[in-house]
Amino acid sequence: MAQITYKDAGVNISANTRWVTAIASAMKSTYGPRVVADRHGGFAGLFRLDYDEQLFRRNYAKPVLVACTDGVGTKVLIALEMKKLDTIGIDLVAMNVNDLITVGAEPLLFLDYLAVSKLDPQRLRDVVEGIAAGCRESGCALLGGETAEMPDMYQPGELDLAGFSVGVVEHGKAIDGSRVNRDDVIIGLPSSGVHSNGYSLVRKVIAESGVKLTDYCDGLGETLGEAVLRPTRIYVRQVQHVLNAYKRIQVVTGMAHVTGGGLKENIARILPANCDAILKKKSWFIPPIFDFLANHGIRTAEMYKVFNMGVGFVLIVRPRFANSVMRRLEEIGESPVQMGVVKRGAQKVVIR
Amino acid sequence: MAQITYKDAGVNISANTRWVTAIASAMKSTYGPRVVADRHGGFAGLFRLDYDEQLFRRNYAKPVLVACTDGVGTKVLIALEMKKLDTIGIDLVAMNVNDLITVGAEPLLFLDYLAVSKLDPQRLRDVVEGIAAGCRESGCALLGGETAEMPDMYQPGELDLAGFSVGVVEHGKAIDGSRVNRDDVIIGLPSSGVHSNGYSLVRKVIAESGVKLTDYCDGLGETLGEAVLRPTRIYVRQVQHVLNAYKRIQVVTGMAHVTGGGLKENIARILPANCDAILKKKSWFIPPIFDFLANHGIRTAEMYKVFNMGVGFVLIVRPRFANSVMRRLEEIGESPVQMGVVKRGAQKVVIR
Repeated sequence: MAQITYKDAGVNISANTRWVTAIASAMKSTYGPRVVADRHGGFAGLFRLDYDEQLFRRNYAKPVLVACTDGVGTKVLIALEMKKLDTIGIDLVAMNVNDLITVGAEPLLFLDYLAVSKLDPQRLRDVVEGIAAGCRESGCALLGGETAEMPDMYQPGELDLAGFSVGVVEHGKAIDGSRVNRDDVIIGLPSSGVHSNGYSLVRKVIAESGVKLTDYCDGLGETLGEAVLRPTRIYVRQVQHVLNAYKRIQVVTGMAHVTGGGLKENIARILPANCDAILKKKSWFIPPIFDFLANHGIRTAEMYKVFNMGVGFVLIVRPRFANSVMRRLEEIGESPVQMGVVKRGAQKVVIR
Repeated sequence: MAQITYKDAGVNISANTRWVTAIASAMKSTYGPRVVADRHGGFAGLFRLDYDEQLFRRNYAKPVLVACTDGVGTKVLIALEMKKLDTIGIDLVAMNVNDLITVGAEPLLFLDYLAVSKLDPQRLRDVVEGIAAGCRESGCALLGGETAEMPDMYQPGELDLAGFSVGVVEHGKAIDGSRVNRDDVIIGLPSSGVHSNGYSLVRKVIAESGVKLTDYCDGLGETLGEAVLRPTRIYVRQVQHVLNAYKRIQVVTGMAHVTGGGLKENIARILPANCDAILKKKSWFIPPIFDFLANHGIRTAEMYKVFNMGVGFVLIVRPRFANSVMRRLEEIGESPVQMGVVKRGAQKVVIR
């Protein structure tokens, strides 16, 4: 009888071991003093919560862990088609840490799950380098990951990726939107474009438009592929800069990461039952990629339900401090906009 | 021009919202007092590290977070073929928490990532109920998750799942194998079968054998499908029972979760450079599914490289305490075996 090996079944354990070694340097580039040296065989990653007892304890007397998970959806199919995989990892980190910081958490650690048909170290290294870059920008440690080689589940060349992130916030200081009140000011931070939501729709529209990803588009000032692959912005530095500026008073009452569901659904999630958010449509810049999508068949109302439309992250702040928060953001190179206010209402987001 | 909506592209945001509501009760079934009530819009899950300041602080003066991620590989394809999706979630939790506990960590929280072609609430609910069951058994909170609907990446009916888990261990008490020494005793905990590694090989062998998943096999005492789909055992309770029994002395010097790479590679990961592990082949029970696989074309040496061969988790303990640890495990219904000893050597695992 013929003998069957794991390699015959499409899985190569020693290649996997080499791959794990190869990504070690990308992981190490994200390590701070709180990562516990890996003496252990790598079953799990270790992260000290009190890396400097006195300092850290003063910051977090009652630490609350914050955790979330997200993927990048079918944006990865665009990256694969363009054979440009070095930024999709930034998207992956961004989708997770931007969620974490909405509660005021400090991102601590990140893990990735990559699912492929077959290990292709060169391409995967690009992905992991992007993840490590995103982790460095977010100040979190890439503590571990899993690369699953599943030839029967994924087509050759296919790739899916999921990320997981953990942060910490002081108990009682978590920002949950419950203190959002009338007259609070809504500040928007610009997105870089579509970010990582709505790509099934984006890809359908592109397919029907006849425009190729490699086509240069005058309206975009770049190729269509470059416009839709641009990495998701990471807002960690901006949000931490604002939160650190006001330690004694809670100036920020709510924050939202604008993902699937768009401005309306994501801002509504943090509104109290008796408040509306009134947004002034002309107050922020809408990147040209959204004009492209609108001109190729997506109705405006649908666009606002699916995409961020130019605003990737929203802070709701006390009116007295709105100008001061704007200045804080501008001083680190951010371009915030006062895009609206909170009014008495019924948990709706109105865009006029 | 025809208008294109997100729904046309195969994604239904309101179905997704309903789905999130539907799984809330499964998630709540895993919540202990440390989960912070979800006032926030659900961007991230919150978990208090000091749910009872005095008690918890006494346990963890210098908490170290432990994190890991894993999937279930192509075992999910067996579950899909058998249309039995209520245990694959247990596998997912097991693969993660069994990794966590190797360092002596207490599992705290879990998150899942599900990738599908199309939301099928009935089937996915089965998956999530399994995840929740695994979380309850492991004592960790299912704090969040992401269900990604990607019609262009997955075939109708396809499903991939990844898990992520965080635990905590006292700094300086993390078990990393560095204290493993000559004469330490190796105790094995039985697996339930193949667990969740090597399924690309398992499936290839089954395909070539001509035996159907629905066929009853005398040697197995059940259908082939039942044998290969049996959920991965979770060893949290057992390991915690042992660790809690010896608070003052470190009786357990190393632990390994036997996953891809089998007994040899996984035990070698926690051996010091100057020690070998000598395992007595006849000392543990090899479940009949492994005979089936061997009889259908996998060489014995290959089997030991890929599968757990009947031992899912290994504890290495000080020789003076070996019998006492055995008794501790037996008193909670476990069936441990003394399967070998540590000898002077060169970080090899020898099975004789």
